[in-house]
Amino acid sequence: MALFDFRRRLAAEALGTALLVATVVGSGIMAERGTSDGALALLANTAATGAILVVLIACLGPVSGAHFNPGVTLMLALRGEIAAGETALYALMQAAGGVAGTMAAQFMFDLPLVEASTKMRTGGAQWFAEALAAFGLGLTILAGRRFASSGVAWLVALYIVAAYWFTSSTSFANPAVALARSLTDSFAGIRPADVPAFALAEIAGFALAFVFGGWLLRERPFAAR
Amino acid sequence: MALFDFRRRLAAEALGTALLVATVVGSGIMAERGTSDGALALLANTAATGAILVVLIACLGPVSGAHFNPGVTLMLALRGEIAAGETALYALMQAAGGVAGTMAAQFMFDLPLVEASTKMRTGGAQWFAEALAAFGLGLTILAGRRFASSGVAWLVALYIVAAYWFTSSTSFANPAVALARSLTDSFAGIRPADVPAFALAEIAGFALAFVFGGWLLRERPFAAR
Amino acid sequence: MALFDFRRRLAAEALGTALLVATVVGSGIMAERGTSDGALALLANTAATGAILVVLIACLGPVSGAHFNPGVTLMLALRGEIAAGETALYALMQAAGGVAGTMAAQFMFDLPLVEASTKMRTGGAQWFAEALAAFGLGLTILAGRRFASSGVAWLVALYIVAAYWFTSSTSFANPAVALARSLTDSFAGIRPADVPAFALAEIAGFALAFVFGGWLLRERPFAAR
Amino acid sequence: MALFDFRRRLAAEALGTALLVATVVGSGIMAERGTSDGALALLANTAATGAILVVLIACLGPVSGAHFNPGVTLMLALRGEIAAGETALYALMQAAGGVAGTMAAQFMFDLPLVEASTKMRTGGAQWFAEALAAFGLGLTILAGRRFASSGVAWLVALYIVAAYWFTSSTSFANPAVALARSLTDSFAGIRPADVPAFALAEIAGFALAFVFGGWLLRERPFAAR
Repeated sequence: MALFDFRRRLAAEALGTALLVATVVGSGIMAERGTSDGALALLANTAATGAILVVLIACLGPVSGAHFNPGVTLMLALRGEIAAGETALYALMQAAGGVAGTMAAQFMFDLPLVEASTKMRTGGAQWFAEALAAFGLGLTILAGRRFASSGVAWLVALYIVAAYWFTSSTSFANPAVALARSLTDSFAGIRPADVPAFALAEIAGFALAFVFGGWLLRERPFAAR
Repeated sequence: MALFDFRRRLAAEALGTALLVATVVGSGIMAERGTSDGALALLANTAATGAILVVLIACLGPVSGAHFNPGVTLMLALRGEIAAGETALYALMQAAGGVAGTMAAQFMFDLPLVEASTKMRTGGAQWFAEALAAFGLGLTILAGRRFASSGVAWLVALYIVAAYWFTSSTSFANPAVALARSLTDSFAGIRPADVPAFALAEIAGFALAFVFGGWLLRERPFAAR
Repeated sequence: MALFDFRRRLAAEALGTALLVATVVGSGIMAERGTSDGALALLANTAATGAILVVLIACLGPVSGAHFNPGVTLMLALRGEIAAGETALYALMQAAGGVAGTMAAQFMFDLPLVEASTKMRTGGAQWFAEALAAFGLGLTILAGRRFASSGVAWLVALYIVAAYWFTSSTSFANPAVALARSLTDSFAGIRPADVPAFALAEIAGFALAFVFGGWLLRERPFAAR
Repeated sequence: MALFDFRRRLAAEALGTALLVATVVGSGIMAERGTSDGALALLANTAATGAILVVLIACLGPVSGAHFNPGVTLMLALRGEIAAGETALYALMQAAGGVAGTMAAQFMFDLPLVEASTKMRTGGAQWFAEALAAFGLGLTILAGRRFASSGVAWLVALYIVAAYWFTSSTSFANPAVALARSLTDSFAGIRPADVPAFALAEIAGFALAFVFGGWLLRERPFAAR
């Protein structure tokens, strides 16, 4: 990673999150314009999201690590792999990139650049789902990097493909993406008021992945400190 | 595998089977809530199951072998790769993990934690289908480990993707998963009374894979004993 | 390949073709029972077929070469890679395996073991489609083996996924599979009377792939003879 | 690449673009004949296109580079990787191959060999979408070649899978393919009058990828000139 200076790494985080969110939001709009079947729309949304994740992680991973997710950045900061100051700037660029991604999708589909979502996503079942989704994503990243480093892009993408379907919340698992998705009143949207609880549940999931993953993978994350 | 102590291996089997079953059950519920088309629901169920299998086998395989299936554990025990005592504990953890996975899915979708399925799955045609499905899965594992060891996660996942469609039973091919799926009255369910015959047919399929696979792959499994 | 005696190689060709046909036929039946949408049924049929092809070629390729197709065997015989006597026995086992695959699928879905298809597939447009499909498949195999030998299973599977959709005939591209599919009166069927013309068009396509592929890949197939 | 003379390279570009367009157009026709659901048709179109892209790039990349796209050829010419004269002939063969691909698809589905499309695709939102789609495709190629050279076929295919859905234009991202698609009045068509603006927007996207990609990947494309 030392090949790439911090400016390029931040650019990669912003660009990657932007393209990720543009895909999530744009494919949702395309899908709901083409069909009235909710499962079919989610299937199309899933395929597009999974595909772009492989591409973005494989292409930008060597530049910035390809987090595109403040929860992932935080988990890696807890592991001591990224400094506190860099963590905050990563999260900032992810949030800014995500919002730009929503705006790009909205513009491509002739919608207002930003608009507040009216889609309610709340309640204990969905918060549990978000925590579980983030826990699984965190574990996938930790185990994937350890056992199949050249395949992490695929593993993360496939995990999200599954999590879109096995969670009742369709697995946001990403505070920056949740924020960005609150600015579109379309298939992928989430009411702005529902974002903070989702973000908290996701952070809890990543924290749990940090603890449990460290134990399961025999990395003793607390030992040498 | 010696890197990981038995406690971690058991944890990996339980966690992996739980996430597998949560995906199978959860994606079935999500699908039937989104569409009334049976083929579309099965397609979504298939995509989610195949995706999570790649992830779980790649991430947990190096820890526990990633069986998540008492039939697979038994087949490997027949080959002398796992001791009898460990076999029983593996199967126990798989069953417990599977049930926990159903409960997690039910909770995420605001359903009772457990409920008896009312979906009838029985009869000679389906038992033959389960035996064939397990035979193919066993062969895939044996040949995959021999010829494409780094790709076993993909091969198992793709085999299940196909088997969901080519068998009339949608290919459970896993006694622990069948048990867990009897506790949800949703798309992926199976009547508790129908589980034992499914489990027997599956075990027969894995036993046949052990015998035929040993011959086909020139491993002479009986020779040196 | 010398690791495996001729008996095992024939068994692998028969088993592989049987599982391939069981998947093609079985997934077609499952799909048309679940939906009345023709495109959705074909999509499910496509996913199952592509998935099993990766598995079968990866698992049985090291044993027999994983042709499962008399046209492929013939193309490789023209290249001098397989002897004439072996070619005939390969084709015989592929045909027998294919028929057994249809019977297995019919049995799993409570249908007569064999029945004549009534689905008409004929005419110049479809014959051209079959020739083009087989030409492309032949080229994929020749170029894949040369440039990406460890990925041939994926390339063949993905080629068939595309060809199911870009040809008006849904790309049989395989005389043994065409024969076997004439014995089911379901989604994947073809009238027995239409099989010979399909088979001829397919053979022509593989012959063209042999000639053009030899030139394009600079292998000068005619030079040293 | 020096293994293959210029004649073979041109043949590979023509053949590859022909098969790519035949797949895009043919799968669109097959899809709209099978379903009235627009999202389902696009999903089938997406699956076929993504699958054939992996195959064509893996099989023909070692021969010609597998551009199949004048915008990609131009981007690589800007980088000095291909001479001006070769660039023009590449583009010519891509265009000719693309038109032949449309004709093949039309013939297979019993349609006139060529016909003018009546599908309107125009306006600022779609032009922006095409520029963004081409920019992303260019970046994917540049970063993929640098960081994951053996996986470029997959990355390009997956990028297009996502871009079919996240752009309002369904991401042509290819002037030669846009031209060829203007000659079919079916699902994948585009009015001939709308092609030039699409082509211009795509060229702009590739030019931007050249500049930004050079900076992001620290290749300093302007420095040594």
